[in-house]
This record gives sequence, C-alpha cells and structure tokens, in this order.
Amino acid sequence: MLLSLSTWQEVETYLQKSTGIILPIGSTEQHGPTGLIGTDAICAEAIARGVGEATGAIVAPTINVGMALHHTAFPGTISLRPSTLILLVRDYVTSLAKAGFTKFYFINGHGGNIATLKAAFSETYAYLEDLQIPSAHKVQCQVANWFMCGSVYQLAKELYGDQEGSHATPSEVAVTQYVYPEAIKQAPLSPEVARGHRIYSATDFRQHYPDGRMGSNPALATPEHGKQFYDLAVKELSNGYLEFLNADTVS
Amino acid sequence: MLLSLSTWQEVETYLQKSTGIILPIGSTEQHGPTGLIGTDAICAEAIARGVGEATGAIVAPTINVGMALHHTAFPGTISLRPSTLILLVRDYVTSLAKAGFTKFYFINGHGGNIATLKAAFSETYAYLEDLQIPSAHKVQCQVANWFMCGSVYQLAKELYGDQEGSHATPSEVAVTQYVYPEAIKQAPLSPEVARGHRIYSATDFRQHYPDGRMGSNPALATPEHGKQFYDLAVKELSNGYLEFLNADTVS
Amino acid sequence: MLLSLSTWQEVETYLQKSTGIILPIGSTEQHGPTGLIGTDAICAEAIARGVGEATGAIVAPTINVGMALHHTAFPGTISLRPSTLILLVRDYVTSLAKAGFTKFYFINGHGGNIATLKAAFSETYAYLEDLQIPSAHKVQCQVANWFMCGSVYQLAKELYGDQEGSHATPSEVAVTQYVYPEAIKQAPLSPEVARGHRIYSATDFRQHYPDGRMGSNPALATPEHGKQFYDLAVKELSNGYLEFLNADTVS
Amino acid sequence: MLLSLSTWQEVETYLQKSTGIILPIGSTEQHGPTGLIGTDAICAEAIARGVGEATGAIVAPTINVGMALHHTAFPGTISLRPSTLILLVRDYVTSLAKAGFTKFYFINGHGGNIATLKAAFSETYAYLEDLQIPSAHKVQCQVANWFMCGSVYQLAKELYGDQEGSHATPSEVAVTQYVYPEAIKQAPLSPEVARGHRIYSATDFRQHYPDGRMGSNPALATPEHGKQFYDLAVKELSNGYLEFLNADTVS
Amino acid sequence: MLLSLSTWQEVETYLQKSTGIILPIGSTEQHGPTGLIGTDAICAEAIARGVGEATGAIVAPTINVGMALHHTAFPGTISLRPSTLILLVRDYVTSLAKAGFTKFYFINGHGGNIATLKAAFSETYAYLEDLQIPSAHKVQCQVANWFMCGSVYQLAKELYGDQEGSHATPSEVAVTQYVYPEAIKQAPLSPEVARGHRIYSATDFRQHYPDGRMGSNPALATPEHGKQFYDLAVKELSNGYLEFLNADTVS
Amino acid sequence: MLLSLSTWQEVETYLQKSTGIILPIGSTEQHGPTGLIGTDAICAEAIARGVGEATGAIVAPTINVGMALHHTAFPGTISLRPSTLILLVRDYVTSLAKAGFTKFYFINGHGGNIATLKAAFSETYAYLEDLQIPSAHKVQCQVANWFMCGSVYQLAKELYGDQEGSHATPSEVAVTQYVYPEAIKQAPLSPEVARGHRIYSATDFRQHYPDGRMGSNPALATPEHGKQFYDLAVKELSNGYLEFLNADTVS
Repeated sequence: MLLSLSTWQEVETYLQKSTGIILPIGSTEQHGPTGLIGTDAICAEAIARGVGEATGAIVAPTINVGMALHHTAFPGTISLRPSTLILLVRDYVTSLAKAGFTKFYFINGHGGNIATLKAAFSETYAYLEDLQIPSAHKVQCQVANWFMCGSVYQLAKELYGDQEGSHATPSEVAVTQYVYPEAIKQAPLSPEVARGHRIYSATDFRQHYPDGRMGSNPALATPEHGKQFYDLAVKELSNGYLEFLNADTVS
Repeated sequence: MLLSLSTWQEVETYLQKSTGIILPIGSTEQHGPTGLIGTDAICAEAIARGVGEATGAIVAPTINVGMALHHTAFPGTISLRPSTLILLVRDYVTSLAKAGFTKFYFINGHGGNIATLKAAFSETYAYLEDLQIPSAHKVQCQVANWFMCGSVYQLAKELYGDQEGSHATPSEVAVTQYVYPEAIKQAPLSPEVARGHRIYSATDFRQHYPDGRMGSNPALATPEHGKQFYDLAVKELSNGYLEFLNADTVS
Repeated sequence: MLLSLSTWQEVETYLQKSTGIILPIGSTEQHGPTGLIGTDAICAEAIARGVGEATGAIVAPTINVGMALHHTAFPGTISLRPSTLILLVRDYVTSLAKAGFTKFYFINGHGGNIATLKAAFSETYAYLEDLQIPSAHKVQCQVANWFMCGSVYQLAKELYGDQEGSHATPSEVAVTQYVYPEAIKQAPLSPEVARGHRIYSATDFRQHYPDGRMGSNPALATPEHGKQFYDLAVKELSNGYLEFLNADTVS
Repeated sequence: MLLSLSTWQEVETYLQKSTGIILPIGSTEQHGPTGLIGTDAICAEAIARGVGEATGAIVAPTINVGMALHHTAFPGTISLRPSTLILLVRDYVTSLAKAGFTKFYFINGHGGNIATLKAAFSETYAYLEDLQIPSAHKVQCQVANWFMCGSVYQLAKELYGDQEGSHATPSEVAVTQYVYPEAIKQAPLSPEVARGHRIYSATDFRQHYPDGRMGSNPALATPEHGKQFYDLAVKELSNGYLEFLNADTVS
Repeated sequence: MLLSLSTWQEVETYLQKSTGIILPIGSTEQHGPTGLIGTDAICAEAIARGVGEATGAIVAPTINVGMALHHTAFPGTISLRPSTLILLVRDYVTSLAKAGFTKFYFINGHGGNIATLKAAFSETYAYLEDLQIPSAHKVQCQVANWFMCGSVYQLAKELYGDQEGSHATPSEVAVTQYVYPEAIKQAPLSPEVARGHRIYSATDFRQHYPDGRMGSNPALATPEHGKQFYDLAVKELSNGYLEFLNADTVS
Repeated sequence: MLLSLSTWQEVETYLQKSTGIILPIGSTEQHGPTGLIGTDAICAEAIARGVGEATGAIVAPTINVGMALHHTAFPGTISLRPSTLILLVRDYVTSLAKAGFTKFYFINGHGGNIATLKAAFSETYAYLEDLQIPSAHKVQCQVANWFMCGSVYQLAKELYGDQEGSHATPSEVAVTQYVYPEAIKQAPLSPEVARGHRIYSATDFRQHYPDGRMGSNPALATPEHGKQFYDLAVKELSNGYLEFLNADTVS
C-alpha cells in the first residue's frame, strides 16, 4: 500500500490495524561511469515497495536526496547537509506521529545516510517528547540498510568477491538494472580502481576516486543478479519490519 | 532525460549544451475522500517528465513532500515546515550550481509551496553570492505551477465551472487518474462542500473543511480529462521553460 | 490607537473588546534616484495608522526592514534574509498571541515581503499549535498590500498608465510626498527605464535596473496624488480589516 | 540625515565622506501603569536623531522590537528571542557593510538588549570575516546606552534619588513626555513598589513586579525633565559617536 | 560533590535537599606569551570546585570552550559562536531542569562569555516556559565572574596596579600557577604592552594586541598570589551561591 | 602536550612539525547504580592524554557533554541535542583549521556520540570548503572509540563474557576506577539486568532499563582491570593516530 496512492480515509482505516510505516530513503549522487545517479533511491524504493507488498505495510514517498556531500565534486550529485536532513526527518516523523504512526522503518539505500539518520532519530525523539504529543514515548525509528542484509552481503561476496567494492558496487548496479533494464549504461572502466581511502571532503574524495568508484567493478552486474538481490533484500527486510513491529513498546 | 537515470559523465556532457534543469515539486497531503495523498507530486512529476521530453531538459528527482502544514490534521499528510523547505531548496540549488547549473525551473503541483519556494529562492541567491561561487550571480530560479497555466485554467472552467474548487480539484484528480488509472478511488462525497474560508492553522482548516475538499467536486474527473490537462500543461510549460532558458542573463 | 503610545493596562482593556491588531511592515531599500529608501515603511506606517484611526484598531510598531535582498547591491538598502524574517514574524505573533491577540493584519508596503510573510504565517501556526497555546488554533494572519488595493491600482492606471511600473512607482513616491513633503527629491531620470526582467540575485538586479527603477516614472508623482492614494488605501483596507475581524473562527 | 528619507544616491555620496551610521534600537514592552509600551524605542529614536543632526551622521530606521522576553507576561509586550535578534543584527550589519559602512553605533534605549547586542556583534564580526567581505576586519559595532550616560545618570539622581528605580523610570518616562506630550498618561500608582529582585522568567518577573515597575516612581517625570535628559544624552552621545568614528582602525 | 564523580542515584538524593548546581565555564584561548590557553577554564574549574566543597553544592563538568572569537587569529584558540553557545547552555539547563534543578550558578572565568551567557539565560527561560516543564518559572540562572569579585579586584590592584591589565592578567595567570605549578611558562615579554583598544574582529584584535596581552604584565604573577586569589574568590563566590540559593522564588 | 597547558606560541611551534590534534569527547550521563556520571568523559580524557604522551600529539580540552538524550530520564544526565553537537564540532574544527590544523582525531568514550560526530564531520567539510579556507580540502576528522579497540574488546570478553553488556559496562567502570580510585562506588545491583531492547526515547529507555544498566554487571570491575584496558587502548589508539597522521592527503 503506497501512501501516495491512498486517500486520507484509507490511511485512517490502516491506522486502526497498524501504526507502522516504511520510508524509503536514497541519494542522488554519482555512481561511477556506469552507475545511475539515482541508484540509491531506485534500490531503496523498489525494495521498500516489495516489503510493503509482502507485509501489508504502508510505504511513504521516497526521500530521493540524502546526505552525499562527499560526492558533490561530481556533476549531477545533489545533497542535503546533515543539519537539513535532520530537520527533514524530524518534520516527516512529526507529521506522521501526530496522526498516530509510531513505528518508522527507514529502508535505506545509501551508507552516507546512516549517521545522519541516527542523529535525526535522537533529535526527533526528544523533540516529540518536548511537544508532549500523546504517543511521543512510543515513537520508534529504525534504519534498515538493504545492502547490509546478511543474505545480500553473502551473495555479493559469492558473485563478485572483492570486486564488490564499497561504492558503485555491482550489487546495487544490478538492482537498478533489474528495475530499469532500459537504463543499463556502457562506458569504459579502467581496470584499476582506487580503494581504501577514507571519506573526507568532496575535493579529497574526487582526487582519490577520480571516476567515482570505490574499489568496485560494476561491469559484473546483470539484471538477473539484480533480481536475486532484490528478492533476498525484500525477504530479509520483510522479516526485519515484522520483528520491529512486534517488538515491545512502552505502555 | 532523467537525472536519476543518468550517469555523472552524461550530466557533464549535458552541461556543455545547457545549464538548465527542471525540478518537480509536489506535496504529500490529503486530497479529500477520493483524491490521492500523492496527487500534487504525481502531477508535478508526470508533467515535468513530459516537459523534459519535449525540450530535452534534464529532470531532477521529485521533491515529494512540500509545505502542507495546514493539511496535517488529516492522517497521511506529511509536511516540511517552511524553514526546512527553504534549507532543502538551498541545498539542492547549491549542489547543482557548484556543478554549473544556472537555470532552475521548479514545476510545482501545490499552491501551498509557492510562497516558501519564492522565499527560498531569495535566500539562495544571497547565500550563493556570499559563498562567492563563480556563477552565483547567474543563478535563476523560477516556479511554474501547472495548475495555473492559462490553458489548464480555461479547460477546468469549461469542464467543471465552479465545481473546480481550489483543493482536491477535479482537474488534478483527473491527471492522477490518467497517470495511475489503477488507483482511481470511489467514496461518497457530500453534495455540499465548504468553500471560501481562508487557510490558517491545521485545526482551523479541518474544522472548516471536514472532508478535506475546498469547494470542489472531484467526482467529475475522468482519465480522459486528465490526459487533456496533461497535454496542455506540458505544452505550455515547455514553452515557459524555453523562454526561461533564453531569457537574458548577466554577463 | 498606537501600541507604542499605550500602556499595558490600556492594552489589557483593549483586549476585552477586540483581539485584532494591525502590523505595518515596510522595507528599507533603494527606490530609484528620487524615491526614499524608507518608501515602503513610510507608506505602510501611514496607511496602517489611518486604518487604525478609522477602525479603532491598535497598531503595532512598524517593521521597518523586510526582505529586500535583491536590492542590496544599492547602498543604503538593509534586508533581512527570509529565514530571519520568518523568525521575527514568529516572535512577534507569539508574543502577542500569548497575551490574547488572535487576528494579525499585516499592512504591507513591499511586494518582496509577501512570499516570506506567507511562509512565516504557516510556520507560526504550526509553532503555536506545537506550543499548545490555548488560542493557537484561533490565530489568523493576513497580509494586506496597500498597493494592490483595487481602488489604488485603478487610480495609478488612470494617472500614470504604464509609467506606473513596478518599483519606485509614482504612486508610492506620491504617498511619501504626501507624508513627508519636506523630503521630496529631485534628480535627473533617464527617459528610458528598464522593465520586464524578473528578479533574481542582487548583482543581476542592479545590472538590469541600473538606477533602481523598474519601468516607472516617479517624476509624475505629486503630494496631491499621494493624498488620493492614501485615502483610497485607508478606506479599502479599513473595510478589509473589519471583514477579517468578523470572519468566522473555529470555536 | 535619516536613511529612510534619503535616496540611494545620497547614501553613495555620504559614504565618500563617512562610513559611520547610527542605529537606534528600543523595545516594545510594558513600562508600568503610566509608561508607554514604546518608551525605549521612542527615547532611542529621538536621541539618535538628535545625535545625527549634531554630528551629520546618517541614522537608520529604528529597531522597534528588541529582547524583552521577561516582560512578555504583560499584554502589549513584543519580544524577539535573543537568537532572532542576533540574526537581525547580523543581517542589518551585513547589508550595510557590503555597501561600505564600517562603524555601527547602536543607540540603545533598553537594558535588556545589551547582552544580546554584544553577542550579536561577536557573531557578526566572525560572519563577515568568513564571507571575506573586503572591509570585514574594519567593521566595528558599539552599543551606546543613553540612560547610562554619566550626565543623564547624574541628573536622574539629583531629580529622583532612589525613586529613579531601574524600569519604567521617571527619566525615561520624562523623555517620552517631552517627545509625545499628547500621550502623557495618568493612572494610580501604589506608593510601594517592588525592587531588588533579579530578572529571570516572564512569569517570575510579573509575580515580583506586579504592576511592571522596578523600584521607580514615574509620577515624578515631567516633559521639562525630559528635555533636559534629551539634551544631555544627545550631547554626550554625539561626543561618543565622534570618538568612535575617529578611533583607530586596522589598516 | 562533582557531578562527574557521582552516580545518578546520588544525584537523586542530592535533589531532595537542594536544587542548586554550579557550572564552571571557561574558554580555550590565547593568553599572551606566558599565559596558558586553558587559563579561563582552569581558574573557573578550580574555583567552582572550591565553592562546591565549601557549600556542599554539586559541580557540573566544566564548559571548556566558550565565546572567544576575537582571539581566533592566534593559534590554539577554540571558540564557539555565540549562537552555538546559546544552544549549548539551553541544552545543559534543559537537561538538568527536567531532572528538578532550578538554580544554575555559572562560575565564569572569561569576560567574553558574559554577554552570550546572559542572552542564553533569556533564551532558555522562554524555551522552558514554552515546553511547559513543571518547574519552568522557577528556573534561575546567574553568572558569577570570579575575576570581578570585589576582594579579587582589590588584591589585584594592590599587587599589580595598572599592570593588571584586562587580558592575560597577572591575577589569572597566578591562579593557574597555583593550580598547575608544573606548567609555569617563561617567555620574553616586551616592556610595552598595548592597551585601551576596544574588541572587534579577530583580525583587528591581533593587529592591536600583537602578543595577545591587553595592558597586562603577567610576569608579576606568582603561585602564592594565585592561592590568595583562589581563596578570596572561593570565599566570595560561596557566599554568592548561598545567597542565590536562598533568594526568593515564585511559588 | 595539553592544549590547555600550552601557550599560543608553543602551539605555533607545534604546528611547524604537526597539524594533528587529539580531541577527547565523552558524555555526562547515568551509568547505572555504581557507574560514574562522568564515566565516558573520564575514560576518553585519560586515554587521550595517554595517546598524546605516547605520540607527542597535542590534546584539546575534553568535550564533557555529548549526545545522551536517551539517558535524560535519569537525573544528572546532561545532553546536547545532535543539532547542537554538530554546531559545536563545526566551531571547534573551524577555529583550529584556520590556525592550520588539518588532522582531527576524536577519541570517543560514548557510543551515542558516534552518529552525530560523523554527521558533524560531513557538515564541517562542506562548511570549510564553502568558507574557502586555504586548507579546507585537507581537513580530515576521524572518530576513534576506545571501547571498540580490538584488544579492549578481546579483554572484556575474556574477563566478563556476556556480563560486559553494552552500557555501564565493567570495562568502562574499571577504567574510571583506575583513574579515580577514590570514587569507587558500592550499591546493590539486581542480579537480573535488562538487555536487548533498542534505544529510542528517554522515557522508553528508562522503562526498559530501570536502573540504567544495559545487560552489564559492573560489579566485576576492578582498578587493575582498568589499568589493563587503559594500556591496551592507549597502545592501539596511538597506532591509530599515527596511521591517521601518515595517511595520504590531497596535495
């Protein structure tokens, strides 16, 4: 059930049986010479919708732009600053918490979002308690990173070994190929690829990772792999969501 | 050309021929008993993509959540506060301006976004000049509201007269029916509908507009109307975008 | 009744019969070679006081500096950023709402303030509801632009035709001449005046409008015209204020 | 020379001979049963204009609302939060510093503004240096409190002894009587008046100072006293301004 | 009793007999060629602990970095912006007020903190009243500057006359020598030392005070003097704290 | 070398041989019935000083209060909001980066700080690049959590098995016992201790962890263990710091 394709009365009905919601969050950032700029949002959205179908959960519109400041030296990247993303998450959760939602499951497609999301959750819990919203103390947020699912990680290792890398990975590229087969890109990839340098400023990043990849060989990706990753992630995160829903809450 | 389905190298190439970009912005808010919560984002995204195809412009990911605080007494609504939306727009434009974009055409699906967008543009121009980004003084932002297109307005008047209303209108519902025919909703609509009250707080809004509609009869909408509105809006905004691109800029 | 010339006990008494207040807001910005930098504040203040006298409303001190970032390439301009002006409006309204005021009528002298004021109103309604101020849901803000009054517009058209322009207009200059006849300025005005360019950054503005005027011929202004404009605006906005006061409110 | 009654070209000319500017700042707050809510702004504005005439300095529009949170339990008080006032001062100074002003002399009518003004100055110096405005390191701000002038203090002591008190004082009331003789108020004043309690929250303030006065007997004020205070303050602050202008600056 | 060396249950017990707390605040900034960068924090911490022992008060961890923007042109200085320090103080006081603390006694070692602390107190009172924390109206904050104690000032005058100066003073250096005798520094000091210039930007400060001292001769300091200053400050501020605790509060 | 016990000239000298700095960050929060509220700051500070001695690095003053919002339902806890901590880190790093520091090694004692620190680093890199500080692109920040050192983790497992838990752990208590043997606390500890519940709001936390411990048995701690942990952490983090210093930087 997609929030954007529902009416407010349908949401009212939904809230009588569940107060959980899934929020896909991605990023709009360079993914190397062949990866789509929307990769992280595409993966998060597709998998979130899969989890929504599998669990009956309502799925919020995708947060397409996240925290990607370190990629901003490449054209096409759009990033929120962490302080902006914190406010955005606070506003999303506050709007929904006032309506009765209490379990916020963020399905995330971008490693760079994790720290800011966690900071935003802390900020938001305190904000809601300060507002004295009736259900403030029941609000729970969780970030679930599809690319960190055990099953996904396992398959990526089997298929790609250390060519999986850590950005513009064949696994995420494969999922986008599965979702958008019409947008599979071809471009020359240097056989050598930088790896192992930590992430600091945007200028520093581009100097160390001149084509945008971090230790990955996205040429290994196929749409068929993509479907496998998608299926594994949907299955594992569906279980994760249901556990989250059923976890104890303060009375 | 969709930014999210492009690579950074394709964006680099694009920038050699154009520094314009289209940014769809909608809202996630109640649209009466039969209107989709995603109505404003759906319309803005579809029309923006149409304009992108017609003009060769690159289209950014949709800003799905806008300024809808006055609808937050209805479940399912998500809103940014104006101060958050200003920061979001500033971050989007700054990221893209650093890469060389100078013409930002926001195709907007929600009246409630207009004031905040304009405030955000002013904030952003000054911010970019303060940062001393080389092209700061060339950056231009414009908001183009599809529902205010002359041709759209004209057709809505012909088809619906004063039953068009001003929120959850048959014209916007029609566009969503055209885009998502599988999500056409049925629900009883009271023959009388509130109208004429100004917009203040969320509580006030819901008391005056108990089912969420503002003077509209969305039951008049059809997917065929939707296609007509879509075509008119794409045509008129394509012209608008090209004029914007070609308007004079400081040297 | 001027707030600044009242005591707190007089305000307490006033609140027993009315919870409305008029807030003049102007700007401190260049108005071409002959227009006063304080034009927008002078007009808003004079007209607001006229409306206060005509309706018995209390009038707050004038907000002399507004959102004029696009004029800051001309010396003498002072501008708040939109984000600052939003906080200022929020603080004003919050202070007064805690004391019992609920109807805030901003008489505005500057087009550049409108978007930010509207954004500020939305921000403030939500803020007050979050604070759970008893009367939060009754708070209503409205912006009334004297230069957009139908009667004013009509007269300007009759007197000046298209030489009215849109900044440093003869109509606003006339009002300042009526209020401050001792400060009527003479300076050479080029017969040709720029018009038709949209407003973007401060640098861009000055390049397109080198002497600060936008399509206007302020040399046509006279103090007598000023009195006419003043009278029309006071009359029309007095009616506007009374309608606003009497409009329905949530119970 | 009043900024609001000048044109931008006159300001341009002024800047060729001086980069100093006087900014009156007051407050809009209760001043006991007989003191005007605008007392602090009225005094600051009148004295600032006097100083402007005596020294040839340009005088900015008055900041009518300052930091008066502790008075907000009395109706009619309007206050900015310190964080808002800091932004406001930053925006004022930044606008003017970009045009070439470097010496900012705030003539202040309200003790409650002092701390926030000083904090704002520090914030602004750093901000301007970060922006790399050419004259950033030359910008100097000073707060000059008319009621702390030695000559004013001396006269108040002679005329009123310890009935001067520290809020709603006869000296400031006298100045307003001199400026607005038509707005002299009469109201019963209890012979006993609270004094000696420090200032904390608004609730605490009103409980300790139930009629708003702090140890003062404003019934002693006369318009003639007001003229004396006015003359002394103008003389002393004119000297202060000229010293400030002539103080050494970094090259 | 040090908060950092207590358990939460000990704090719970403490709150049954007192709701007062001492918060040392210093700065991390240049103190001339022989003064320690931590001077202000060292003095504030040592004296605060002395006061805590003398009065049985609990002492919070030291705020080591304060508002020292004007010293940032010297390496080793760390400063918060005033707007950041305001938030920090608000967060400290809010955390503790929710637990039941109501009397906040800031023992301060740095003149540059005073204005911002006072602004922060005002901001915080209003914030707590907005949050509707039960004890909000009882919260009281006070800043106590050890170097402004009458007894300290008197001794400094006796020992050093006008060589006390106003920054990197022998009195504060003496206290650090008493606390950290192992860190007494030797460096050549020019016999002439700048004095009398007001504080503006960091660049301006360093140009006027090239070695960082303001009119002081810290070579006069001895650890024995330091003990004397320490004893006087502890005694005077202990009395100050007890008076503060016993001052009337709203019921 | 401690920054607080250095002079600015010593820092200037230091910068000629190294641009690295160690910043200890802890928290001020409940640590169960026997753990010190300052535990995280005490551990971070002690270990940071050990690393400073071992490597010759300069050590900044400890950030004593971090992000501990989830502990604020226990008295004695002080927390910054994430948004405040981000500003604090930005201000620290900016001050030091302007002086020439480029390598910022945060030795952290509190798991709750990690996400916000990482968000702050991203915010700061972009901020410094926007300011166009000469060395902006060279600035690198890293968070090093002593309790996550492999050797520490290993020892904790050997000594305590699953009684190590995840908050108020015997390992961190042991370090505080080693550093402050005079502050070893005794209090009854229930044999059963809650574990396994995720961290959400402060209210939720206290309901699930009523005495503040998370799965830990701090009664197992001894000062001797503390010394072992201290030694291991100092050794491992000294290596970590040196590697960080020597890692490649953009030219």
